[in-house]
Amino acid sequence: MGTPPRSAKPRNGKAGKPFLRPFSGEAVAPPPIWLMRQAGRYLPEYREVRAKAGGFLDLCYNPDLAAEVTLQPIRRFGFDAAIIFSDILIVPHALGQEVRFIEGEGPRLDPITGVAGLARLDASKTGDRFGKVYEAIAKTASLLPAEAALIGFCGAPWTVATYMVGGQGSTDQAATRLWAYRDPEGFSQLIALLVTTSIEYLCGQIAAGAECLQIFDTWAGNLPDDEFERWSVEPTKAIVAGIKKKHPMVPIIGFPKGAGASALNYVAETGVNGIGCDTSMPPFMMAEAFADENVVVQGNLDPLLLVAGGEAMEARVEEILELMEDRRFIFNLGHGIVPETPPEHVALLVKLVRGGH
Amino acid sequence: MGTPPRSAKPRNGKAGKPFLRPFSGEAVAPPPIWLMRQAGRYLPEYREVRAKAGGFLDLCYNPDLAAEVTLQPIRRFGFDAAIIFSDILIVPHALGQEVRFIEGEGPRLDPITGVAGLARLDASKTGDRFGKVYEAIAKTASLLPAEAALIGFCGAPWTVATYMVGGQGSTDQAATRLWAYRDPEGFSQLIALLVTTSIEYLCGQIAAGAECLQIFDTWAGNLPDDEFERWSVEPTKAIVAGIKKKHPMVPIIGFPKGAGASALNYVAETGVNGIGCDTSMPPFMMAEAFADENVVVQGNLDPLLLVAGGEAMEARVEEILELMEDRRFIFNLGHGIVPETPPEHVALLVKLVRGGH
Repeated sequence: MGTPPRSAKPRNGKAGKPFLRPFSGEAVAPPPIWLMRQAGRYLPEYREVRAKAGGFLDLCYNPDLAAEVTLQPIRRFGFDAAIIFSDILIVPHALGQEVRFIEGEGPRLDPITGVAGLARLDASKTGDRFGKVYEAIAKTASLLPAEAALIGFCGAPWTVATYMVGGQGSTDQAATRLWAYRDPEGFSQLIALLVTTSIEYLCGQIAAGAECLQIFDTWAGNLPDDEFERWSVEPTKAIVAGIKKKHPMVPIIGFPKGAGASALNYVAETGVNGIGCDTSMPPFMMAEAFADENVVVQGNLDPLLLVAGGEAMEARVEEILELMEDRRFIFNLGHGIVPETPPEHVALLVKLVRGGH
Repeated sequence: MGTPPRSAKPRNGKAGKPFLRPFSGEAVAPPPIWLMRQAGRYLPEYREVRAKAGGFLDLCYNPDLAAEVTLQPIRRFGFDAAIIFSDILIVPHALGQEVRFIEGEGPRLDPITGVAGLARLDASKTGDRFGKVYEAIAKTASLLPAEAALIGFCGAPWTVATYMVGGQGSTDQAATRLWAYRDPEGFSQLIALLVTTSIEYLCGQIAAGAECLQIFDTWAGNLPDDEFERWSVEPTKAIVAGIKKKHPMVPIIGFPKGAGASALNYVAETGVNGIGCDTSMPPFMMAEAFADENVVVQGNLDPLLLVAGGEAMEARVEEILELMEDRRFIFNLGHGIVPETPPEHVALLVKLVRGGH
């Protein structure tokens, strides 16, 4: 398909949701915009709902409240896409692993440190918990403005496994990487379970109303190339193939955070339709590296630059927009928005991307 | 200078310490080997000295004990280089910032969060503390086997600043990156102070007996390209230039961890003589990317693979050795050795690299 010609129509000149049009081969100008974790703690209206929901998982499993917080940033900023409010740890939780969210500390799981621990997981009982997410998606879809798209998601098997094995987030994922090195056959059973469960889960999200999917591989970056190939690329490829068999037209965005130069192989091998670029990828590389791939590029403003705002932010936004002009591009951050972000900076960002000053 | 011909002599066929010969343009076979953090907690003899030294900083500032733990891994494994036992936070400590090491938690500093905090630093009083490190270097040099080289080091200004500003280690370096975004002029004063202090410190290490230097930029990887250029590349370039003015023949290795594809620019722009590659760089890229640069490549076995050992480790070591054959190469890890590493795996690694089985 390659780079589309400069003649790309203005965003409202053609039918279809602006967010989805790049996936049909069209460079949309100005580019669609949404932000990872756009429904979240930086918004006072989110904090209000969160306070009355009970625990974090209670909010995820409450279709009305999950739909409400999903829609909040769309109402406030008019983003081109909503992403269902949920968490990548819904999958291990639905599989029967204990998951707790401790305020200010992040998730804690009852770690599965070897093959024997897999017996604690039960793929036949995911329906109840996944069902709540599907309900939230259906509810959101029914309330979403006509021009906005709805994104479903899951964590990539590798990233989800790092929490399941480590019991919490960590900077080096040592427990999981050691299991993978010491017992690759055993570890591959966990990954295989996550692949089949993720396919089921994402297909369910599509059936409920998701129009695009993103696979978050937040901890892909610490894997050496051979391990990245085996535990990040291969399982993602299997998930993409599994989805495409049933839903060939639903675009899938991969986000192998920290993959650096390996992101190019990732695109070629997994078959994703979009590639999320993290903050460490220079915008000129984002513009050049994927030019020959049939892929939509998404990224990559530094979330901390959105906190800082000011001229530095404006200059970087301009740089990204100029480099990605005429490309099949979706504006986003290079990682999730942080709680300290002033909402007025987000409003300014949307204005800048849409050509206002 | 380019890639040397296959005719490179075996390591003992020529004069000079094996570790230093690649810097003179020679591919040494088998390659020299040392490991980052090779003096450390994975060694029982280190833990013994550490226990009697008092605090961690007491050990750093005790020339006899620092020399002793520096020499321990040389005695046990016969590495081709020793790196002086010390810490990158000696620089802020010598500048007058409070630094404490809390067992099991890492360093804690009294954070400097803006330009006003720079008044707490005094570059004229570093002599006493730096002097203890110089003494340790001189002592080590006098006791080191003739064929082993001695490496001095410091942290790169960006990485040291992340601790000085954040008050501790963090995965996103948010406090420091926000200061740099919001007040680049003010932040550049801190960086400039670290540049001049690091030049003084490294020249002092050379005068005391260091034969090679390594600049650790552990947190370079989170910087977007323009910030990486400004806060990692430029200050490192200034340090290299400052050292080369006085000591043109002392090789300097840069280690911009997480820089990914930007490592190539880093080499071209900073003028380092060696480039440390982290675990995320595929060995084939380590072999290809720097082929046209006049630079020694160092890396990059996954420290966790050294913990795991076994066939997976042996296969990867073979892969690295084959790809780097005939190259100006130093075998190392892609990051520091971890405390859980079995010393017998290290002994096996050295044997594998030197061609034993």
